[in-house]
Amino acid sequence: MLYPNNIKKQYHKQINYSNRGMVLEELINKTNHYNLENNLALIYKKPTPIGIVDVSFNNKGKQIDKAYFKEPSTLDYNGLYKGKYIEFEAKETLNKTAFPLKNFHLHQINHIRKVIEHKGIVFIIIKMNNLVYLLKGEDFLSYIDNHERKSIEYNYLKEKGYLLKENYLKGLNFLEIIDKIYL
Amino acid sequence: MLYPNNIKKQYHKQINYSNRGMVLEELINKTNHYNLENNLALIYKKPTPIGIVDVSFNNKGKQIDKAYFKEPSTLDYNGLYKGKYIEFEAKETLNKTAFPLKNFHLHQINHIRKVIEHKGIVFIIIKMNNLVYLLKGEDFLSYIDNHERKSIEYNYLKEKGYLLKENYLKGLNFLEIIDKIYL
Repeated sequence: MLYPNNIKKQYHKQINYSNRGMVLEELINKTNHYNLENNLALIYKKPTPIGIVDVSFNNKGKQIDKAYFKEPSTLDYNGLYKGKYIEFEAKETLNKTAFPLKNFHLHQINHIRKVIEHKGIVFIIIKMNNLVYLLKGEDFLSYIDNHERKSIEYNYLKEKGYLLKENYLKGLNFLEIIDKIYL
Repeated sequence: MLYPNNIKKQYHKQINYSNRGMVLEELINKTNHYNLENNLALIYKKPTPIGIVDVSFNNKGKQIDKAYFKEPSTLDYNGLYKGKYIEFEAKETLNKTAFPLKNFHLHQINHIRKVIEHKGIVFIIIKMNNLVYLLKGEDFLSYIDNHERKSIEYNYLKEKGYLLKENYLKGLNFLEIIDKIYL
């Protein structure tokens, strides 16, 4: 009531944007941290690849003064669980009916194919309509290879995906689902 | 002959420093690239973890204006080979009789222990006296756990390590050695 309309709108926009980008990532980070602390799995987020242009030295050591983000060619998270290689990507969308494939780089899609070929476990965690699904890399590729679309229909995700449960302390139960569908 | 003595010395110093820091890393990168291109293994160097302080936007996109290097808690390279999780670190030393352990962070040593516990394949590639050895994580830890020293003796590396061969095209033959000692 105190603010003119356009300022209120902007504020809400920022909240939404932040939800879309960060909430799932924070949830995955919490899960990985819990799994590490409890010695259940060794899964880490890969640092964002950057190209360094300028560095300088000061009393705190080496500092980066100019760098840019590079396009990742692998997925964001990888690691080890019960002797198995695990790799996955986590994505959120506000879209209610379809998950846009522009969220993936071509390199990443090719990489998913290669991980399967080399007998690793690879999947996508997708948050959509306030639910979190695990979609096997095999089902993700099968959709892409058999449809001319630029997005995955929500119905496909409901049909082929595994609904993940969220626990305040433990985060997401994807290790349980891995046990059930891969091991 | 054209330069005063101190300039010549500096020049030689730079060459040595560069050899120590970069030659092995470039050789490993070449090997990983060859193995990827020939679909033999999916092993990547992890990006250096950084903390971003300032970013700005320009016509090329998002640019990092200030960041610092973080201490890594895992090893530099990881990936997938014949369904197995692989992780390793590569280090060079100019020291001829012992490999200094200050080259490793405590986090990394603990991480090696965990990778073994979770049934991954983990090793160190060490270049010393112009030879490149693969030392199994198990043998690396066994030395650390049983010696009060701050370095690994070269004799131990010669006894327990596996001498790697270098090929101009293919890089180092560590996949062959993995086949022999782990699979």
